[in-house]
Amino acid sequence: MVISVPATSANLGPGFDCLGLSLNFRNRFEIIPATKTSVQISGEGVGRLRADESNLFVKIFRETLREFGIGEEHFAFKFHNQIPISRGLGSSSAMIVGAISGAFLFAGKRLDKGAILNKALRYEHHPDNITPATFGGFTISMLEKNKVFYLKQTLPKTLKAVVVIPDRAMNTKYARSILPKRYSVEECVFNLSHSSFLSGIFWSGKWEFLKLASKDMMHQRQRMDTFPILKEVQKTALNHGALMSTLSGSGSSIFSLCYSDDAPQLHKVLSDRFRNFRVLALEFDNLGVLKQG
Amino acid sequence: MVISVPATSANLGPGFDCLGLSLNFRNRFEIIPATKTSVQISGEGVGRLRADESNLFVKIFRETLREFGIGEEHFAFKFHNQIPISRGLGSSSAMIVGAISGAFLFAGKRLDKGAILNKALRYEHHPDNITPATFGGFTISMLEKNKVFYLKQTLPKTLKAVVVIPDRAMNTKYARSILPKRYSVEECVFNLSHSSFLSGIFWSGKWEFLKLASKDMMHQRQRMDTFPILKEVQKTALNHGALMSTLSGSGSSIFSLCYSDDAPQLHKVLSDRFRNFRVLALEFDNLGVLKQG
Repeated sequence: MVISVPATSANLGPGFDCLGLSLNFRNRFEIIPATKTSVQISGEGVGRLRADESNLFVKIFRETLREFGIGEEHFAFKFHNQIPISRGLGSSSAMIVGAISGAFLFAGKRLDKGAILNKALRYEHHPDNITPATFGGFTISMLEKNKVFYLKQTLPKTLKAVVVIPDRAMNTKYARSILPKRYSVEECVFNLSHSSFLSGIFWSGKWEFLKLASKDMMHQRQRMDTFPILKEVQKTALNHGALMSTLSGSGSSIFSLCYSDDAPQLHKVLSDRFRNFRVLALEFDNLGVLKQG
Repeated sequence: MVISVPATSANLGPGFDCLGLSLNFRNRFEIIPATKTSVQISGEGVGRLRADESNLFVKIFRETLREFGIGEEHFAFKFHNQIPISRGLGSSSAMIVGAISGAFLFAGKRLDKGAILNKALRYEHHPDNITPATFGGFTISMLEKNKVFYLKQTLPKTLKAVVVIPDRAMNTKYARSILPKRYSVEECVFNLSHSSFLSGIFWSGKWEFLKLASKDMMHQRQRMDTFPILKEVQKTALNHGALMSTLSGSGSSIFSLCYSDDAPQLHKVLSDRFRNFRVLALEFDNLGVLKQG
């Protein structure tokens, strides 16, 4: 059985902990019944992710199976990872959503995405990556009594993402620890109005407002101050065709959105200017987690 | 010349200072060139609104005319007001937008709604009422360098508003003074996620989520605590067919949204239960300010 889960960019601009979207750049998780358990990793995370029973995917897959009454089976796990680790592109969410989805399928259940999303919330308490990882598209998530509610909007082919992935990771916990504990009314209203506006753009298609609506007063500045070259990446992107350019998750990647026609040029400028960083031009994803075999 | 401007409900739930919508319940402002200036008010505001040169509408109309190089003309102003004063239904915004629009037309200009909105912002610094008053529909507003940017979505005929208007006014300044100066990250994220979600609903038509998405942690509780019966109005509305029920503006009215088919029953229940209050079942407006003669 092969499950694939897309990369995601969350915390989109003002949409702290609620707005996210899905990129067609996937981790493939292969799960094969076996006589003894083995974990094999290729691509991203080799040498960094645990390759034994303590692997996050393996643990969550087993826990979910146990909830379905399936106990001590053995599996050969083969992970083919494209999503870089700790770069704000949803690699943990992909593992979590992939593991739970795998367990659903192995237990003979249908891929009930609503149920998968809510189980995923137990492992990742902010829904802005797990929702697009599960459903694809642009998503707005809100929590009510430990349940995720979401709206999804399909992303059009006329738009593309250009992602700049630094050579340095951002620690998610640290990135949260440097944020203020309280915000002024002005900061709140700024983010409220911009995040609502940004959401409306993904339905109305008024892309010309993305640059303004994607501004933030809650998290980006504080986080980018710890890694100042990110501000240059953002500025360069906005000056060379990006409709919006935001810190991806809590970093360290910078996510830019542009018209598909502008993606090659934007990709070239960013690659030339930031030679130590990886730059990827990617299509958006509208499918989320998939059974691929 | 007759200008009409709709009532509006703003501060919609979590959408503090940014989300608003327009109700088909209008003030008609008649402006007739005359040999001496007179102000005549009928309907709402008789005895409360100034009926001379110091009237807000008259002052703004004259100021705008002066900007267009038109000086000391005389007019007979006849105001036929439906919108109650100081009840959170946008009566000031209607006056401001009406006066500026009147001046545009009197100066021989077209009704340039973008320009009218930005002039209106000088008199009302929060855009959430003036935007729907100008354009109609459901609107998201954000500010950038003293300019309003907005998105508008048409409201469908299948929805109606039921508004409960108490016999007591709410002072807007006081209503703002009782709010906290700072909010926790949790409160911010709650409102961010809900306001974004609420916005997405008006495009996606997923009305079944309105009740959840219209929850707020920034202003409603504090304001409704000063006038506790409003909580009962809200609860009664939600229990009798309202899809959402929020404080209108900073109060004192309660705005409820329901399917058109449910409006008569909701109107009846609220009228029976709150006999001292006015209860109106209203259509939504998608036109905003209009020249009517």
